[in-house]
Amino acid sequence: MKRHGIILFGHGARDPRWAEPFERLAAKLRDSRGDQPVSLAFLELMSPDLPAAVAQHAADGCDAITVVPVFFGQGGHVRKDLPEIVERCREGHPDIAIHCATAVGEDDAVLEAVAGYCLRQVG
Amino acid sequence: MKRHGIILFGHGARDPRWAEPFERLAAKLRDSRGDQPVSLAFLELMSPDLPAAVAQHAADGCDAITVVPVFFGQGGHVRKDLPEIVERCREGHPDIAIHCATAVGEDDAVLEAVAGYCLRQVG
Repeated sequence: MKRHGIILFGHGARDPRWAEPFERLAAKLRDSRGDQPVSLAFLELMSPDLPAAVAQHAADGCDAITVVPVFFGQGGHVRKDLPEIVERCREGHPDIAIHCATAVGEDDAVLEAVAGYCLRQVG
Repeated sequence: MKRHGIILFGHGARDPRWAEPFERLAAKLRDSRGDQPVSLAFLELMSPDLPAAVAQHAADGCDAITVVPVFFGQGGHVRKDLPEIVERCREGHPDIAIHCATAVGEDDAVLEAVAGYCLRQVG
């Protein structure tokens, strides 16, 4: 049976409350994805990092993983750091197809939802 | 006439392409807000900073400004740095009502849109 995991990749922060929206996002995806694994991974300051999350999905039997950068903008972290880490993960798990998505903030529906939130704040 | 500005507050990054979603978000809000000002401000690495953006809105005749943190999580930048900067802005512009919203990533409709994007990535 094909197993296709999702890893939500965020920056990480010192304050543990920072991760709360990421945890809620993962919970929403788990509701939609049945028994397919969904987990978080962080660039820095929080754990697990991406290689550890990929290893967990490998142990869980995934043959495909989609990494989604939960960033608004595509700067150095998404354009440079992330591809380097993903490449190392591919070398360590050559049997797993690891796909890396564009940052969520580049999606027009996400921006529309953010715009709607902003408009509700000004009444 | 009452003028109510929106300032989208982001982290900032070295790569100018990082700001593209913020610029698209500002354009969407301008489409909805008629001649009410909408602008960007950054914590670091990009300009303007928040005090400069508030001064611009003040010069533009705003009597109210809503600052929306375009962050997913509420960590130290949103919980500590931003309130300190906003307080200094209020002291510099006592006639302007400056309201600070919760980070956009805490909004459920935003998270739903991000979840929808993630699901489209796995097909």
